[in-house]
Amino acid sequence: MKIGIDLGGTNLVVALCQESGEIVTKLSVPTKVGDPEGVKADMKALAKKVCDNRGTSYKHVTSIGLGVPGSIVKETCTFEFATNLQMKNVCFADAFKPEFDVPVYIDNDGNCAALGEAAQGAGRGAQNVVMVTLGTGVGGGLVIGGKLYTGSNNIAGEIGHMVIVKDGEQCNCGRRGCLERYCAATAMIRMATEAINGTAEESSLRDTQEKQGKITAKDICDARDAGDALADRIFDKYCDYLACGLASLINILQPDCIVLGGGVSGYGEKLLIPVKEKTAAEQFKVGDKTTPIVIATLGNDAGLIGAALLNR
Amino acid sequence: MKIGIDLGGTNLVVALCQESGEIVTKLSVPTKVGDPEGVKADMKALAKKVCDNRGTSYKHVTSIGLGVPGSIVKETCTFEFATNLQMKNVCFADAFKPEFDVPVYIDNDGNCAALGEAAQGAGRGAQNVVMVTLGTGVGGGLVIGGKLYTGSNNIAGEIGHMVIVKDGEQCNCGRRGCLERYCAATAMIRMATEAINGTAEESSLRDTQEKQGKITAKDICDARDAGDALADRIFDKYCDYLACGLASLINILQPDCIVLGGGVSGYGEKLLIPVKEKTAAEQFKVGDKTTPIVIATLGNDAGLIGAALLNR
Repeated sequence: MKIGIDLGGTNLVVALCQESGEIVTKLSVPTKVGDPEGVKADMKALAKKVCDNRGTSYKHVTSIGLGVPGSIVKETCTFEFATNLQMKNVCFADAFKPEFDVPVYIDNDGNCAALGEAAQGAGRGAQNVVMVTLGTGVGGGLVIGGKLYTGSNNIAGEIGHMVIVKDGEQCNCGRRGCLERYCAATAMIRMATEAINGTAEESSLRDTQEKQGKITAKDICDARDAGDALADRIFDKYCDYLACGLASLINILQPDCIVLGGGVSGYGEKLLIPVKEKTAAEQFKVGDKTTPIVIATLGNDAGLIGAALLNR
Repeated sequence: MKIGIDLGGTNLVVALCQESGEIVTKLSVPTKVGDPEGVKADMKALAKKVCDNRGTSYKHVTSIGLGVPGSIVKETCTFEFATNLQMKNVCFADAFKPEFDVPVYIDNDGNCAALGEAAQGAGRGAQNVVMVTLGTGVGGGLVIGGKLYTGSNNIAGEIGHMVIVKDGEQCNCGRRGCLERYCAATAMIRMATEAINGTAEESSLRDTQEKQGKITAKDICDARDAGDALADRIFDKYCDYLACGLASLINILQPDCIVLGGGVSGYGEKLLIPVKEKTAAEQFKVGDKTTPIVIATLGNDAGLIGAALLNR
């Protein structure tokens, strides 16, 4: 058995998993933000509890993996930094001793989610998977040859910071025109807001904006579903940008599949259909065989499963 | 010992190599374009000859690798297609029997060059290497974990067809705004030609164009060296585009190093200095540690060495 841990800004979740990553049982407590010793103690207590609940001897646990929302140093199993959690340089290597005398692995939560989806989710059975998370930002994770690929310095997979529009929109990373500036949920909102404010065209999104003071990506999708022409145009533009980025990733990496996660992926088939069509038209392929693009299936469990599957 | 073969449009080169890839001796003959059986016979004859020349028993050869300028099917060791060579679906699996009863591997010549540079050239000792070839087009090759990475369909590494300017210059691949349209030698020439024709500004490149009927990338570099302001501006713009692409590749893959090859890389340090500075300013890094960008060192031997090192 393995233990997977997802340290989030709100909750700390600990799962007992099969060697394949499948979750047997899980427990969670609120995260003690700013209290690393408290977090460590909670992790250990929950790890023991998930084993106890299933009558699993601690000795049958072969490894423990942690997914954390920030930068890490793999070699020392250290959580380097995360603003959200008010923690800095917390080492977890010995946090589970003496009960669990096993290797403890750590990685970024986005990477863990990619590994989880590749192993047990939408990418199941695939060797090479690119995960693209369409949320507040655009995150990513690469699985190559069935293993998490994090490059030479543990920070590979920053797919959101591939430039698709040179000298385009200013990104928080310092570059201009990053994929994130066009494909995050916030980017869809920006494009819609600009469109509403730049035209007199009738749109239900204007009413929504006036009513709520703002619009969300879901509002845009809902308006599109209801036949709003402006929402449809914005969504189409969003899909254009996303397909542009995905086709580039395919041309570089030719994965078995691309898994889309994050809030925007909740739009499901209505996102997939146009994005697949646009991407297929731009990608390099052998014969007619285009790269499958699929929606993540594990939700929050992806990170837990991926954490459990971490190894050197 | 291993045998590496570089099947070019002009010459067929066969090398006897150490297990490490180092070339012991090599021989070449003109390529029999449009005559696959003749090419096969030449390959075998040269393979025997390089062994004979060094007194190496054929039995000491452990594998044979071919680098070819076109699309391949790895599994069947088949050279699928290349316009240049007027060959289609040529299988090399049994081409060296009975003298050499060893595995025969095949890959694209660009990929072989990347593997060669990673193993014995500018990337020596690195596990993860991105090779970018700046020639008539922009080619690429990825080495991940010390092995050639060609994705799920053998065609990964098409770095030149990552879009950096959405809706930009039309590319031969069908997309618009590919890196290749801004960073090939031909792109530098296009930008310079447009600049000359679009301004009355004095530039030695205009005289060169009038004298030669055209300009080359080398002319632009030479004019820059001689202090030509327009050439300097075009070159700077070229470096901007290249740095944009390289920073994106780094953000995605975080390799140990990026190796630049192809004609433009012959400009050496004068290319490297601005490109490194511009890339460093845009890339994600841990602390101050930027990704080394280096010039390929093996020239035409890179493909031979990489071919010799091919394996499953």
